[in-house]
Amino acid sequence: MNTKLIFTNNVADTLEKYVAENNFSDIFVHVDVNTAKFVMPILESQSETIRKAHKITSPAGDDNKNIEQLTGLWKQLSDAQATRSALFINLGGGMVSDLGGLAAATFKRGLTVVNVPTTLLSAVDASVGGKTGINFNGFKNHVGLFYCPDVVIISTVFFQTLTNYDMLSGYAEMIKHAMLKGKQCFDKVMAYDVTLPPVNPDALIGLIKESVLIKKDVVDADPHESGLRKVLNYGHTIGHALESLAVNDRKSTLAHGFAVAQGLVVETVLSNMLKGFDSAELHKLATYVKNSYGPYDITCDDYPKLLEYMRQDKKNIDSGNIDFVLLSDFGKPEINVTVSEKDICVALDIYRDLMGI
Amino acid sequence: MNTKLIFTNNVADTLEKYVAENNFSDIFVHVDVNTAKFVMPILESQSETIRKAHKITSPAGDDNKNIEQLTGLWKQLSDAQATRSALFINLGGGMVSDLGGLAAATFKRGLTVVNVPTTLLSAVDASVGGKTGINFNGFKNHVGLFYCPDVVIISTVFFQTLTNYDMLSGYAEMIKHAMLKGKQCFDKVMAYDVTLPPVNPDALIGLIKESVLIKKDVVDADPHESGLRKVLNYGHTIGHALESLAVNDRKSTLAHGFAVAQGLVVETVLSNMLKGFDSAELHKLATYVKNSYGPYDITCDDYPKLLEYMRQDKKNIDSGNIDFVLLSDFGKPEINVTVSEKDICVALDIYRDLMGI
Repeated sequence: MNTKLIFTNNVADTLEKYVAENNFSDIFVHVDVNTAKFVMPILESQSETIRKAHKITSPAGDDNKNIEQLTGLWKQLSDAQATRSALFINLGGGMVSDLGGLAAATFKRGLTVVNVPTTLLSAVDASVGGKTGINFNGFKNHVGLFYCPDVVIISTVFFQTLTNYDMLSGYAEMIKHAMLKGKQCFDKVMAYDVTLPPVNPDALIGLIKESVLIKKDVVDADPHESGLRKVLNYGHTIGHALESLAVNDRKSTLAHGFAVAQGLVVETVLSNMLKGFDSAELHKLATYVKNSYGPYDITCDDYPKLLEYMRQDKKNIDSGNIDFVLLSDFGKPEINVTVSEKDICVALDIYRDLMGI
Repeated sequence: MNTKLIFTNNVADTLEKYVAENNFSDIFVHVDVNTAKFVMPILESQSETIRKAHKITSPAGDDNKNIEQLTGLWKQLSDAQATRSALFINLGGGMVSDLGGLAAATFKRGLTVVNVPTTLLSAVDASVGGKTGINFNGFKNHVGLFYCPDVVIISTVFFQTLTNYDMLSGYAEMIKHAMLKGKQCFDKVMAYDVTLPPVNPDALIGLIKESVLIKKDVVDADPHESGLRKVLNYGHTIGHALESLAVNDRKSTLAHGFAVAQGLVVETVLSNMLKGFDSAELHKLATYVKNSYGPYDITCDDYPKLLEYMRQDKKNIDSGNIDFVLLSDFGKPEINVTVSEKDICVALDIYRDLMGI
């Protein structure tokens, strides 16, 4: 990954410097209605680059990562006569960088992309690693590609306006990264209360940097997810299935991080069942998730639908199988573990017990 | 470019061997209605792999390189539960590999692609180099990306059913490659009559191989068209504008190669005007194009539209400018030459004189 990561609390100056060092024909800033309202005015007041740039606004929410919005972005770039030497800045959460990244990567075969994540979730996850995508045919990120941003500017200044709910949503990925790294990391993350008001940017930035670098190391070693990178899907096979269930069958939404938090518990149950992951650590995780996130209410009637979504997961090697990342211990992931539907149902039962539902 | 080029007259065996050496979860063959009718039955009779594969058929013609067909391909892959380990074979001309390549590159962030070009044009051009794309908002290949096929299997056996018109369409790219290489190559290509019946596959394959390798060398040196690769656009700035004029304003079609042939003449006029390209060689080219392809009928009333299409060309560095590849001599291209609208109009006037229109 050639992406440069910049950790800073001065986003405007960083952007001005970057633009001055390069020779872009034009600058586009992609936001959603939320970042248009809460973040754009701040950056505009500080940065002439942002003030002068073309603005492209998408509606907010993961269900707008769709073909219609993608086509709309292409249309706006085309009508503005964007050339391939244009810069495309994604200012927002994962939805903004997933959708905008795909549009920019495929417009005239690729513009230069800079991501400025405005949520904890996108700072530690979506903005790094080059994954772009939209939902399609009822499946999450079914269409997309790997396209690395040139620069990611990570700052905690935007988090001041986030809710505890937003912070927790991002924190689930940090728990995941910690579990992939080692027990020391995990204990540090378990000990920090991301919901304590007021959010302390300085205390948090150290944890974020550590977390992002865990991800970056993995992505650098395997940019196209042919093997190792799959470890980053820990918690996500179940997590994505829960999100699909929420959106498609319950016509509701489930924040990605909240889905992943549940997924981490279920997949750590599987790790315990099939790979001997420590029982006490599983209980520590389950208690943290139960207390901080609460359970997601499912019954055994939901299992067939959930299994169907899991079978469609991009990471399955053979059609029909369901593959997981499982941990034998902290820092010891194993990829492509095919798990039987029976074992998955047992793990879901145990999850419900642990969560008291 | 990691693409492996295989020149063979036994496509079926080559495919069987390739599939046997790899471990694909599933195989999809993408054709258009023409290759479905004329080529698929032959390959099916020779190859169990092709016989058993999922078939995906697109309508024929460049105007079907659009968002609706792209979405249709994604839908068929999704409904067939294609995993990321699937193989996607494009069996057809440039339309099949441009559209199919984009669909395969963006489905679940990328399947393995093999191109089997069935026309001379796609053999020497579209199937090599990783460009994929669809037309959008009235512009050709406005949306797309670079995605290299794993293997390209090039054979002249499919050309037996092509018309002289098809052969000439492909030959224009071979003229272009020859001009980029050197005078000796150019003379060889000018001396061969691709329209002579019957097409002699053995005589042609040598010329094709030479031509494809010229392109491959350029692509290998600059896979993402940041510089050198732009030389391959010689003749295409004008060529694409003529195609856009035909489709958008005349509601007709103009075969890509026929458009490029005209474009080569106009851009060689510019090369002569601005870079001192030899006058006698320009006349040799113009005579060949006039006799083999005939002129494309334009008047000065078409110039404003043509200029508008040129301004939208992906290769322009600054919005508003029109950039060309020009030759000071055979094998001596210069990229990013910004040309004034006045000079372009003069060159179009001279083109019309040369063509007698």
